[in-house]
Amino acid sequence: MNSATQNEAIHVVGLVGSLRRGSYNRLLMELAQRVAPEGMTIELFDLDDLPLYNGDIDNDNDRPQAAIALHRAVEQADALLFATPEYNHSVPAVLKNAIDWLSRPQRGGGTPPIWAKPTAIMGAATGMWGTIRAQKHLRSILAATNTPVVMKPDVLVRNVKSLVVEGRIDDESTEGFVHELLENLAELTWRHQREYNA
Amino acid sequence: MNSATQNEAIHVVGLVGSLRRGSYNRLLMELAQRVAPEGMTIELFDLDDLPLYNGDIDNDNDRPQAAIALHRAVEQADALLFATPEYNHSVPAVLKNAIDWLSRPQRGGGTPPIWAKPTAIMGAATGMWGTIRAQKHLRSILAATNTPVVMKPDVLVRNVKSLVVEGRIDDESTEGFVHELLENLAELTWRHQREYNA
Repeated sequence: MNSATQNEAIHVVGLVGSLRRGSYNRLLMELAQRVAPEGMTIELFDLDDLPLYNGDIDNDNDRPQAAIALHRAVEQADALLFATPEYNHSVPAVLKNAIDWLSRPQRGGGTPPIWAKPTAIMGAATGMWGTIRAQKHLRSILAATNTPVVMKPDVLVRNVKSLVVEGRIDDESTEGFVHELLENLAELTWRHQREYNA
Repeated sequence: MNSATQNEAIHVVGLVGSLRRGSYNRLLMELAQRVAPEGMTIELFDLDDLPLYNGDIDNDNDRPQAAIALHRAVEQADALLFATPEYNHSVPAVLKNAIDWLSRPQRGGGTPPIWAKPTAIMGAATGMWGTIRAQKHLRSILAATNTPVVMKPDVLVRNVKSLVVEGRIDDESTEGFVHELLENLAELTWRHQREYNA
């Protein structure tokens, strides 16, 4: 892990719960990249090639390359950012799969990369409820992995289709909420790193 | 859907949330096959080849063969049975992925196969809590898909490792709970089909 202190750069890995090319949650992640506070970079990690978790290949010889790459990216990041759609009142399998892999020890043993990694979550939906149930499940899943999650603000983007202009989410209110979320993520990351480095 | 009435055969599709060959939940599914009530058959549907859900390939031209086969199997079944491990306080991505696919309309349109399909859930864990949190999430997910789920008994198999003898779960108490669960699944299926055929 980097050892950023306040005012130092923060490197965030962004995970999007939808594989669809035109995903609204991908657009939300791109909005986050635009409104991130100074010094924060958000790198989108693509989950397309990550196979479904299977205990039989979860060992130092057989672990798939995509899982190793995901582990490495999160291990090297200061913080995580999830953009989740809501499928069937919960997180998509795509996102749960990433977490299932990230909750496993690193190659050669050691702490799972998601363990104690400062994290923020947000979500966008075409409907009226803005992924509220998916985010509730996601928070309880991230309690299992000892992952500190920014509490406020809730970023629940509803009716997202109506906010898209020329291929991007163009909405001041959403930009404000996401910016505040990321400022709080920076704060959580600095506090966390001070405690770990103390 | 078949139109079984009481005392007619019930065909159940069984889905296991772990891909691991030696999975305890697979053993639990095999136990269910052994103790199923007379006239009930449980066919294990293998989820190994089911790709992660992706809206871009979820159409009549691009839907993967494994998703089409899963749709067909569940459509033709009278009922569903889930055996779920607990990963990170929730259902494994493997099971959520099956549900994400099954919650989509059938090829050519029409009702999703999981819609209104009578279902029972059970789970086994090596730890002390017997998948209780995964099952809680699973029930709330299945509320989204309008899937009626057997209420009782809870089949929460804990310390499952200690129950395995010669490659099978050998435990009278577990057999009794699973048998009761399946009797209630048969009851729910008959009642459901009477109502739908009335």
